[in-house]
Amino acid sequence: MIGTDSPVLAVLCGDQHPPDMDSIERSATVRYTRADGLAEALRGADVLFVYDFLSTAVPDAWPAADRLRWVHIASAGVDPVMFPELRASDVVLTNSRGVFDSSIAEYVLGVVLAFAKDFAGSLRLQQECRWRHRETERIGGRTALVVGTGPIGRAIARLLRAAGMRVAGVGRRARDDDPDFGTVYPSERLTEHLPGADYVVAVAPLTEQTKGMFDSAAFAAMRPSARFVNVGRGELVVTEDLVAALRAGELAGAALDVFDTEPLPQDSPLWTMPNVLVSPHMSGDFVGWRNALVAVFADNFQRWRGGQPLRNVVDKTLGYVPSGR
Amino acid sequence: MIGTDSPVLAVLCGDQHPPDMDSIERSATVRYTRADGLAEALRGADVLFVYDFLSTAVPDAWPAADRLRWVHIASAGVDPVMFPELRASDVVLTNSRGVFDSSIAEYVLGVVLAFAKDFAGSLRLQQECRWRHRETERIGGRTALVVGTGPIGRAIARLLRAAGMRVAGVGRRARDDDPDFGTVYPSERLTEHLPGADYVVAVAPLTEQTKGMFDSAAFAAMRPSARFVNVGRGELVVTEDLVAALRAGELAGAALDVFDTEPLPQDSPLWTMPNVLVSPHMSGDFVGWRNALVAVFADNFQRWRGGQPLRNVVDKTLGYVPSGR
Repeated sequence: MIGTDSPVLAVLCGDQHPPDMDSIERSATVRYTRADGLAEALRGADVLFVYDFLSTAVPDAWPAADRLRWVHIASAGVDPVMFPELRASDVVLTNSRGVFDSSIAEYVLGVVLAFAKDFAGSLRLQQECRWRHRETERIGGRTALVVGTGPIGRAIARLLRAAGMRVAGVGRRARDDDPDFGTVYPSERLTEHLPGADYVVAVAPLTEQTKGMFDSAAFAAMRPSARFVNVGRGELVVTEDLVAALRAGELAGAALDVFDTEPLPQDSPLWTMPNVLVSPHMSGDFVGWRNALVAVFADNFQRWRGGQPLRNVVDKTLGYVPSGR
Repeated sequence: MIGTDSPVLAVLCGDQHPPDMDSIERSATVRYTRADGLAEALRGADVLFVYDFLSTAVPDAWPAADRLRWVHIASAGVDPVMFPELRASDVVLTNSRGVFDSSIAEYVLGVVLAFAKDFAGSLRLQQECRWRHRETERIGGRTALVVGTGPIGRAIARLLRAAGMRVAGVGRRARDDDPDFGTVYPSERLTEHLPGADYVVAVAPLTEQTKGMFDSAAFAAMRPSARFVNVGRGELVVTEDLVAALRAGELAGAALDVFDTEPLPQDSPLWTMPNVLVSPHMSGDFVGWRNALVAVFADNFQRWRGGQPLRNVVDKTLGYVPSGR
């Protein structure tokens, strides 16, 4: 039984309610809502759990948030809730840091190997029942530049390095002694380090500073043999510049899991371009990911109820959870 | 200028001559030949370099080998030249151990990730311009059983382990302290260890003992969720048993780079089966592999000329180069 002092939790969901909510439901009044009911659900709510993490409904409903103290989002990227009113408020924002690290790292290693071994070519030839031997590439000794040094970028760096690649990072602060990256180049000098990379992996948070950082100048700086991998956010890329650069042969391929418009529109040229691998924003979504997301929130909810410090608190000036390093 | 005591080297090639033969041509009389000229080329030859390593021409031409002392094959597997007359002779046989280790290991890791992340499904959906989110598998913590503990199997074990998988081996000699595999189970107990594996990798040499080792009993022992990877020889597998087991759902998929008949016949059901990845015997063939193969032979040729011990001497009783371990 929930007492009169039990907190009110609004949960923004899409088609599916989050799983494993029983323990939370026992200690809070939980209001599940879709986007169109969010304003009503926020009125009097103490906590908002943004389970539908790609929803853009929060800014519109925000004026109804009359006693909100904490927003938790079921994703690593917090860009959908980084609107000015939330940033300026004293509402705490937390994310789901850690859930996607290893699965996205595996996905990135997988697409690197798919390019090197030409799996797309093998599948196309298989569909035609054609036996055609080709020579393939090794990944050992090849260089990956990982743009973004948060936990997911770190997991990517560790895994690519374990598989024999040379790795460097691009982040806010230059350093030569990073335990995962070795060398981290400063973001403002990205372009001068792109020519050294066989694979360029975009995994930076989407902020005003990173939006559109992969533009025509960046793609022109890449090797004609380079492949670009985006597992961060579609808006890190100027999509028309990427399409033009691929057409011009300024780089050799792209594996894209995120797009500036999702679902990727039917008429996007990316669907049919050779050497482009499209996947539907799923690189991190392993079997069990929804349970893992709720577990992160449930842990934080227990902390919040007990007056303990929350985990994964977003620095709303930076737009992400700052690393301890 | 080649003296009268210069050795005669027969080189069995297909469409292409081997590259980088200049230094060898300076110290030997080199007879390049296709299969139909092999008998003539072998008459009076001291050395045979089987550059066309899948050729089956050597047994037929063997009676013409009247002074042959050494056969080198440009592959890791020596099964095409393990016919009784060569085995019974005192002709030394060497192979190209080492050339393919890292490229085949990368290929195996690539197909493991392709299964886990459903790249084939993504490519099919991409061809239809369809955005359909799926949940994927992680490979971290999953178990791979590598059947074959030679250098290629060891490279596979090391790489899969580096990528976070649990690995065990199957080989001639059981042990618990192998530096690459940890545990190696004995070959005769393969079937009882198959149920523990998420991925089963066939990389054993083809011998009388290993031929057809993956048969209906083996596939029936696998998990319904298991994937089978063959980078060894097609004849390790009873193909019709594999096809039947896949149809019956006794295992979840197969990535096959080698086949009992190559090129894979047009009417093979493997081309069109869902969850089967076909590649044309190329998993080891990185850009530069032909040069690497000739370099291995050239090194051994120099040793032979200098009276030094040859590298990669095949134990003709075992059918492969025995490991130092």
